[in-house]
Amino acid sequence: MSTPDSPGDPGPDDADSDRLARAFLTRVLEPGDETGGRWIREHGARTVARRLRSGKEPLPGVSTRRWAGLRARAARADPAHDLTLADTAGVRFVIPGDTEWPGPLDDLGDTRPTGLWIRGRPSLRMWALRSVALVGARACTDYGAHMAATLAAGLAERGWVVVSGGAYGIDGAAHRGALAAGGATTAVLACGVDRPYPAGHTQLINRIAEQGLVVGELPPGDHPTQSRFIQRNRVIAALTAGTVVIEAAHRSGSLVTARAAQRLGRHTMGVPGPATSALSAGVHELLRGEAVLVTDAAEIVELVGAMGELAPERHGPVLPRDLLAPGARRVLAALPARRPAALPEIAREGGTSEDDALARLYELGALGYVERHDDGWKLTRQAMVTLRTGPNPG
Amino acid sequence: MSTPDSPGDPGPDDADSDRLARAFLTRVLEPGDETGGRWIREHGARTVARRLRSGKEPLPGVSTRRWAGLRARAARADPAHDLTLADTAGVRFVIPGDTEWPGPLDDLGDTRPTGLWIRGRPSLRMWALRSVALVGARACTDYGAHMAATLAAGLAERGWVVVSGGAYGIDGAAHRGALAAGGATTAVLACGVDRPYPAGHTQLINRIAEQGLVVGELPPGDHPTQSRFIQRNRVIAALTAGTVVIEAAHRSGSLVTARAAQRLGRHTMGVPGPATSALSAGVHELLRGEAVLVTDAAEIVELVGAMGELAPERHGPVLPRDLLAPGARRVLAALPARRPAALPEIAREGGTSEDDALARLYELGALGYVERHDDGWKLTRQAMVTLRTGPNPG
Repeated sequence: MSTPDSPGDPGPDDADSDRLARAFLTRVLEPGDETGGRWIREHGARTVARRLRSGKEPLPGVSTRRWAGLRARAARADPAHDLTLADTAGVRFVIPGDTEWPGPLDDLGDTRPTGLWIRGRPSLRMWALRSVALVGARACTDYGAHMAATLAAGLAERGWVVVSGGAYGIDGAAHRGALAAGGATTAVLACGVDRPYPAGHTQLINRIAEQGLVVGELPPGDHPTQSRFIQRNRVIAALTAGTVVIEAAHRSGSLVTARAAQRLGRHTMGVPGPATSALSAGVHELLRGEAVLVTDAAEIVELVGAMGELAPERHGPVLPRDLLAPGARRVLAALPARRPAALPEIAREGGTSEDDALARLYELGALGYVERHDDGWKLTRQAMVTLRTGPNPG
Repeated sequence: MSTPDSPGDPGPDDADSDRLARAFLTRVLEPGDETGGRWIREHGARTVARRLRSGKEPLPGVSTRRWAGLRARAARADPAHDLTLADTAGVRFVIPGDTEWPGPLDDLGDTRPTGLWIRGRPSLRMWALRSVALVGARACTDYGAHMAATLAAGLAERGWVVVSGGAYGIDGAAHRGALAAGGATTAVLACGVDRPYPAGHTQLINRIAEQGLVVGELPPGDHPTQSRFIQRNRVIAALTAGTVVIEAAHRSGSLVTARAAQRLGRHTMGVPGPATSALSAGVHELLRGEAVLVTDAAEIVELVGAMGELAPERHGPVLPRDLLAPGARRVLAALPARRPAALPEIAREGGTSEDDALARLYELGALGYVERHDDGWKLTRQAMVTLRTGPNPG
């Protein structure tokens, strides 16, 4: 497991100052603030944080009124307290340059998140390598919920991580479908990850945090707003290999996610529905454009799995075993050489919990070491060669 | 109206000999017979007919067994009788070179029909200019039937001719939808046009013959076969500006029509349905390829209307008024200069039946003179300029 640095007590060294400055900036700048992103790129996070705190020198391209608003937020911000609070709540703060930072987010340019607050055992970076977003309407139909759950289960069975927004409707059905299949799922929230939203999904989001990942740009306790929901969608789009829209009316937020995915060069997919359904109208609009029609998980994987760098199992493990985190190495060693094994057996043999073993298995899957096999997991052919634990498969 | 030549009494002139030979060949060669088509192209229909009758010189590239089969059919054929029978039943026989022959069928190359047997008043050539095929499963769902009827009505309201195969399910719903909207529809049969198939659609097909067109390659009395159904689909595909598949299972005959349309460079469209419906699976397969997803008539017309030569209303009338058939000229003269008129008024003013007036209006529509307007018809702006019946619209 890649142990995150303890953010509780920022010392004088650069990394921790940068971490403290970025924690401060997630409290002051709104997610997706492109001007703020440019400042950080041009001057560095610490300089931007210092200027916002001192207030003496307004940064370029900002109105007096906006500068005053940012200054008021800066005056109330207490990043050291936020990091301590997060640490207590089992939340870590990951920033660009950390080993857990997911490279695909850098495609967002100046709207790249300043940092990410994360709950859950797995490495977000590893999980992002083999992940697909399933998004759609909150007020979905039974058909939509059925499709979300079925596709999520099918993706989980193929070793893919299901990413969604934790909302009612399609999002919830997708997360639940992945969990029910003993699979991996990540919820990207538009609020503090310690403050599940919607309240009715508190139990679900806590379960995702236990078995998977809950991720967000907002610092502890912060609340969602309309604009934060919309900005959250770009993170979902950037984090994943592709976005599938399941049900969406015209002008739905899910279409924002899909268009963001398109702009980022990710695969964009849509699940068709009756032409008479207003909740499929937005999906059909998308499918009349560049999006690809999909009806099952195999079709999704066929598309996203075609991206070579995101389907490393075709090319064998991408990281030597010695460079794996100790937790992942232990789970890898727990896998039998020539047959698949079920999760409880792997956890027992690896001397860890099932939740932890699952997190590691998905990381090892992203790295090409293991693959799902019916209800269990097994070593890939390439892994057997690399690990010299089996005969050369020729 | 373009009066078809009387085929009853073939004289010694070339045109009638050719007509007689081709009538003979529709009795002897199966629809879509590519070898037969090549013989006709290379030697002419009369030579091929003579060789088949005499039997002395087998044509190239044909086995002894097949030649014997064709010879047996040839011995039983009586084209003069067929043409007389057809004439009595109100059926005309149209061949390449006739003014009513639809040019788009020539895109079929050596599988071009030898000739077409036609029931109904309108000119097939004119109607084909502004036509769309709606095809799909016989055992369709209520949803499929609803979509077929709705799309057909919407196309009819926009002055487009709905072409289908006269079968149960989607075909029937499409024909009925067009008729119910006071629109134009063409049934392309896989049997003699005097012998409606399926029997349960006798009334519907007779009504189509009254108000529209019933067309086929098979001579009077001939019956449908599996291969004839499949070959019929290429005629539907070639005749129209585009093919819309509404419901189709995997390996459905409607997909054959769609793929033929694709090969011929026609627009191919599909109506989505639930991903859980086996009757939408074939359509979704198509939509994952080159076909365009459509959910209403406006989207269909947006696509097929973009073909310049098939949407002459954008460029004004393509045929001078003096060259119009007398029936069409009379109906054109019956239209008021500055307002739309309903069908009964136009028929009354033009001194003809409503069925005949409708046939002429769709022909005039294909030529860019008139367009549908709510429940009635009006002159196009370009027609008003050309006819000098209104002020220059600038």
